[in-house]
Amino acid sequence: MDEDTPRLLADTNPLPETIDARLAQQLTFLIEIDRLKTVLRQSPLAAADRRENDAEHSWHLGLMVAILAEYADENVDIGHTIELVLIHDLVEIYAGDTPLYDAGKGLDQREREAAAAGTLFGLLPADQAARFRALWDEFEARQTPEARFAKAVDRLQPLLLNWMARGGTWRTPGVTADDIRARKAVIGDASAALWAAGQELIDEGERRGWSRPGSASIT
Amino acid sequence: MDEDTPRLLADTNPLPETIDARLAQQLTFLIEIDRLKTVLRQSPLAAADRRENDAEHSWHLGLMVAILAEYADENVDIGHTIELVLIHDLVEIYAGDTPLYDAGKGLDQREREAAAAGTLFGLLPADQAARFRALWDEFEARQTPEARFAKAVDRLQPLLLNWMARGGTWRTPGVTADDIRARKAVIGDASAALWAAGQELIDEGERRGWSRPGSASIT
Repeated sequence: MDEDTPRLLADTNPLPETIDARLAQQLTFLIEIDRLKTVLRQSPLAAADRRENDAEHSWHLGLMVAILAEYADENVDIGHTIELVLIHDLVEIYAGDTPLYDAGKGLDQREREAAAAGTLFGLLPADQAARFRALWDEFEARQTPEARFAKAVDRLQPLLLNWMARGGTWRTPGVTADDIRARKAVIGDASAALWAAGQELIDEGERRGWSRPGSASIT
Repeated sequence: MDEDTPRLLADTNPLPETIDARLAQQLTFLIEIDRLKTVLRQSPLAAADRRENDAEHSWHLGLMVAILAEYADENVDIGHTIELVLIHDLVEIYAGDTPLYDAGKGLDQREREAAAAGTLFGLLPADQAARFRALWDEFEARQTPEARFAKAVDRLQPLLLNWMARGGTWRTPGVTADDIRARKAVIGDASAALWAAGQELIDEGERRGWSRPGSASIT
């Protein structure tokens, strides 16, 4: 086996051969993505003293889309937007999480994630591999209202968790409140109302000393 | 505070009062549901040596709907079905998880979960409280094709995890392969193809000794 090709979870306990080939491919993919539950993010949970994982985060975004879609500045298809947020982090199964406030690690992120998308979505039957790759490309390109809104909730959700943690990753050494504003401004590309609320959280956090005041330090 | 009224997570660190009242209600709900990440299920993960939580499970079901909807015997709206699975376990935040193979604990489950739904969805603005309560009622009643399919993937997903665990909760003391078949037959109400695959997993699991052979023991 190629060293770049990860061993599949389903290979450790193969499905019965009596299962239809197409369905077996789909179940193999669905078993493999169980790994998303083990990819840890930087964000602390509000409800427990541990970091969040990508699967939980993706679920949370789905509910945020369902509840906050009324604040999108352009009309969005809710079901389609939810599909985008449910799949947007799947590539991290093989590419890992890239922290928002880590400038260096982001450099080859695109290449690693694109390779991961090829491997992971390639487990699906060809028609679905193409469809899910297209969804991920849509999310990344942010050229549709749905992709912009999906990105906005992806950036808003950790703001809520950091607020609840009285700082959380805002306290990352070297990060300033202006760094946070710069990283979060993309919320405003989809929703002026949600970005206004996000700025309230950032401003108040800075006033309370939960982030470091000062101009942007991350380029 | 009434002892039956849980203290809200958001009450431990109130949102800035400058945030619009309707949006503040919605964000309070979105913070509160972080608790779903702490509700543990019986199912073991395939990717790590720990039990699954409800938020991860709900995310996994969303992807199963997106990928397996072609096997629904009746036409289903994928976006609507995904909304059903993302919210279906929210009531367990206050009512707890009820194991599938625990006959006793299921007795007052409906009452506890209905009360939890009132408390939790009641955090939302009235229009959304009604909409999300209706989604949960729809899931529970299984009178629509979307609700039946949502229930089917809710029962199929732990079958995959138990298969990967070479038994998992199938090894619960006193449970037989026929008990598993009886609990899972509801998959066939939505999809003959998925139920056929589910039966393959149960049958092969029984042949390998991962479940106890014999007739149904749970009534």
